[in-house]
Amino acid sequence: MGAEALLEQIADVGRDRVRGGYSRHVFDGAERELREWFAEQARARGLDVEVDRNANIWAWWGDPGPDAVVTGSHLDSVPGGGAFDGPLGVVSALSAVDALRAGGFAPRRPLALVVFAEEEGGRFGVPCLGSKLLTGAISPDRARALRDPAGVTFGEAMGADAEHVGRDDAALQRIGRFVELHVEQGRGLVDLERPVGVASSILAHGRWRFRFRGRGDHAGSTLLADRSDPMLPASRTVVAARKEAAAVAGARATVGRIAANPGGTNVIPSTVDMWLDARTPEAAGTRGLVAELSALAARFAADEGCRVEVTEESFGAEVGFRPELRDELSGLLSGAPALASGAGHDAGVLAAEVPTGMLFVRNPTGVSHAPEEHAEPDDCEAGVAALAQVLEAWAG
Amino acid sequence: MGAEALLEQIADVGRDRVRGGYSRHVFDGAERELREWFAEQARARGLDVEVDRNANIWAWWGDPGPDAVVTGSHLDSVPGGGAFDGPLGVVSALSAVDALRAGGFAPRRPLALVVFAEEEGGRFGVPCLGSKLLTGAISPDRARALRDPAGVTFGEAMGADAEHVGRDDAALQRIGRFVELHVEQGRGLVDLERPVGVASSILAHGRWRFRFRGRGDHAGSTLLADRSDPMLPASRTVVAARKEAAAVAGARATVGRIAANPGGTNVIPSTVDMWLDARTPEAAGTRGLVAELSALAARFAADEGCRVEVTEESFGAEVGFRPELRDELSGLLSGAPALASGAGHDAGVLAAEVPTGMLFVRNPTGVSHAPEEHAEPDDCEAGVAALAQVLEAWAG
Repeated sequence: MGAEALLEQIADVGRDRVRGGYSRHVFDGAERELREWFAEQARARGLDVEVDRNANIWAWWGDPGPDAVVTGSHLDSVPGGGAFDGPLGVVSALSAVDALRAGGFAPRRPLALVVFAEEEGGRFGVPCLGSKLLTGAISPDRARALRDPAGVTFGEAMGADAEHVGRDDAALQRIGRFVELHVEQGRGLVDLERPVGVASSILAHGRWRFRFRGRGDHAGSTLLADRSDPMLPASRTVVAARKEAAAVAGARATVGRIAANPGGTNVIPSTVDMWLDARTPEAAGTRGLVAELSALAARFAADEGCRVEVTEESFGAEVGFRPELRDELSGLLSGAPALASGAGHDAGVLAAEVPTGMLFVRNPTGVSHAPEEHAEPDDCEAGVAALAQVLEAWAG
Repeated sequence: MGAEALLEQIADVGRDRVRGGYSRHVFDGAERELREWFAEQARARGLDVEVDRNANIWAWWGDPGPDAVVTGSHLDSVPGGGAFDGPLGVVSALSAVDALRAGGFAPRRPLALVVFAEEEGGRFGVPCLGSKLLTGAISPDRARALRDPAGVTFGEAMGADAEHVGRDDAALQRIGRFVELHVEQGRGLVDLERPVGVASSILAHGRWRFRFRGRGDHAGSTLLADRSDPMLPASRTVVAARKEAAAVAGARATVGRIAANPGGTNVIPSTVDMWLDARTPEAAGTRGLVAELSALAARFAADEGCRVEVTEESFGAEVGFRPELRDELSGLLSGAPALASGAGHDAGVLAAEVPTGMLFVRNPTGVSHAPEEHAEPDDCEAGVAALAQVLEAWAG
C-alpha cells in the first residue's frame, strides 16, 4: 500500500480543532489510537509486534536478533503539528515492506520497523524521550518525574510499566543499522530540485525554561514606577534571543511557548515562564548562546526588580552522521544530496549507539510543525522507493 | 457579624491551587456557590432576595421601591485574585446591616444590598458586565456573544435567561443613591495613615486584544532570515507599552495575558495574542496611547513580515464622582481623605445613572489582584462602621 493511502487512514486521528493540524501526544487518546493502528498494520503484514520497556513499538520481519536492519520514526506530534513529521517515516516503512514483498524480496538479516515514543516532547517537554530512554541518554528517574502541563508525571501517565524504563541493552544489541525517513523541515530539496536527500548532521540543540518572578498586582492601581512586572524582562529576552542568535553562524533561537501567571488582562503577572529553543552547529556554540541570553535575562530582570531562574529541560550535542554511511546511502540513491538538519530526530539519538542514516523527502512549503507541512504524493512514493532500496541493500 | 467572620465563611470557596489565591468566575461552580451563600446570608437577615435580568443579586430591607439606598460590590475574582477585591464590599454590607439592626435602626427609605455579576471580566473579558448590562452601557447582543477562553458564550453560560438581559429601567429607577465599599488597590491610605477613604475619580480605561499573525514553522530548521515569528512584534509591543505609558502623566499600560498558538517549545507560533490594559486620567489620553501603540505594533509586525489586528474589548471613560457627594461622605466620616482610583468599579458604571460614592479600606500591601491583597481586621471593622454610618445617614 502506498504511503499516501496509509496516511489517509489516520487523517482524522488527533485533529486539533482549536490550533489546526494535529495534536497527538504520548499516551493521550489519539496517540494510543495511532499505536493500535500501527500494531494492526504490522500484524496484517505478518510482522511480530512488541513494545519495549520504553514504550517504543517494534514490528519484526524475521526473528528478532542481532544485526537487524531497522527503520522507523514516530507518530506523536507537536501541538497543532503537520501530518508528515513522524508519520511519513512510519507509513513509508510499512509501504516499503509491501514493495519488497511484492518484489519477492526475502531478507537475509532480520528487518524491523520501529515507532519511537514522545519524539516531539510535546507532552513532557523532553524530545526523543523514547529513544533517549532506550539508549540511556536520560535517566529513568528524571524521565518518570517529567510533568505535562496538567501536572501529570510521565511515570503516572505510563502506569506500572514505568518502573521498567531505562537503557535496554538487549533491544539495542539487536540493531545492526538504523535508517529513519523524514519529511524535510526546510527548503533544501526544493532548491536542489530533488525528491529525496540524505542527512549529514543535526544541530546541537536544547530547551531552556526561563522563569521570571515579579510581584503580582493590579493593572490599574499600581503606578508604573512601583511595578515588578515579569512580562517586561521576558519580552526583552525574546527580542535579545533573536538579536544574539543572528550574530552566531547557523544559529536559531525561538520562543514559541510562554505563560503568564495568573494570566488576567487586568493583572500584573507574578511570574512569566518562557521556553527558549536554541540550536547552533556545535554544542559549545549553543551553550555559549544560552549562557549569554541567561546573563541578559538576569540583567533585564534586575532592571525591573524581578528575578529569573533558567532550567535546562533538554540538551543534545550536534550529530554528524558517519560520512561513509551517508556516502553509501547517497550512492545507493543516484547521488541523493546530503543536507544538514536543523531539527532533532530519534536517528540523532541512535547514532551514538549504532550505524545510523537518515533520508529526507522534499517538502514544497518548507514549513514544518504547522498544518502547512506537506509532501507531494510522487515525492512520498520516491521516498518509499528509496527506503525499500536501502533496506534491500542492507538486509538482502 | 463582623466582616472578617463572614469572609472566613467563604475562605475555601474557589481557591486556585495552580495560581494561588482565588479563581471565582461568573457561573462557574465557585461563583454559583458564593451567590447561593450570599442569598442565604441575606434571607437569614430577613432580607428579600431577587436576581435581576442581568444576573445581579439584590437583597431588600424594606419594600423595593424608588429612592432606595443601595450598597454592594461583587463576588467574582480575577484568575488567582485576592480575598478582598469585591467580597469585602459584600460582607461589609451584610455586616453593616447587622450593626444597624443591633443599634435599633429602622430605615425610612428602602435599603438594598447588591452583588454585581462578572465585575472583573475574568471569564468573558468585559469588566463590570452586570452593571453595564443593567445601565445599557453594553448591548445585549454583544454581551451574549462574548466568549470565554473555552469558546462558551455568555449567552450559553447564562442559559435561557440570557434572552432577557439588557438595560433595566425598572431596576435603575429604584436606586436613589449607591455607595460601594472596596479594598484599596494601592498604598494611598497607608501613606495617609487612615483606615478609610472616599473615591474622587476613576481612570479612563479599557482592554485591547492585539493579534499578531505570522507563519508557523519549525524552530530548528527555519533560518532566522526566513521567519515571520509573531512573538517578536508582540514582545517589542510589550516593551513599547511601558515606554510610551511612562511618557503620559498618570498612565498605566499592562500586558498580563498572552497566548502563543500552537504553543509548542520547538514551534515558531503562527499567531500570538496579547491583551493590553491601558488607563490614563482622561478618555482622550487613553485612546491616544492605544492608537500610538497600535501604530508601533503594526510597524513591529511589518518588520517581521507579520500582521497585527487590534480589537477593543472594552472601554470606559474617566469617572469623576460628584464632588458634593464625595464631600458629604468625607464629612460624615471625620474628614476621610479623597483618593483617585486606578481601578474600574461597578460604582463607576452606576455613577453615570445615579448619585454614587465609594469608600476605600486600607490595604497594607497595596497589592491587589493577587493573593497578597490584604486588609487588617481593625480596618475592615472601620470600613463596616463607616458604611453603616453612611447608610444610616442616607436611609434614616
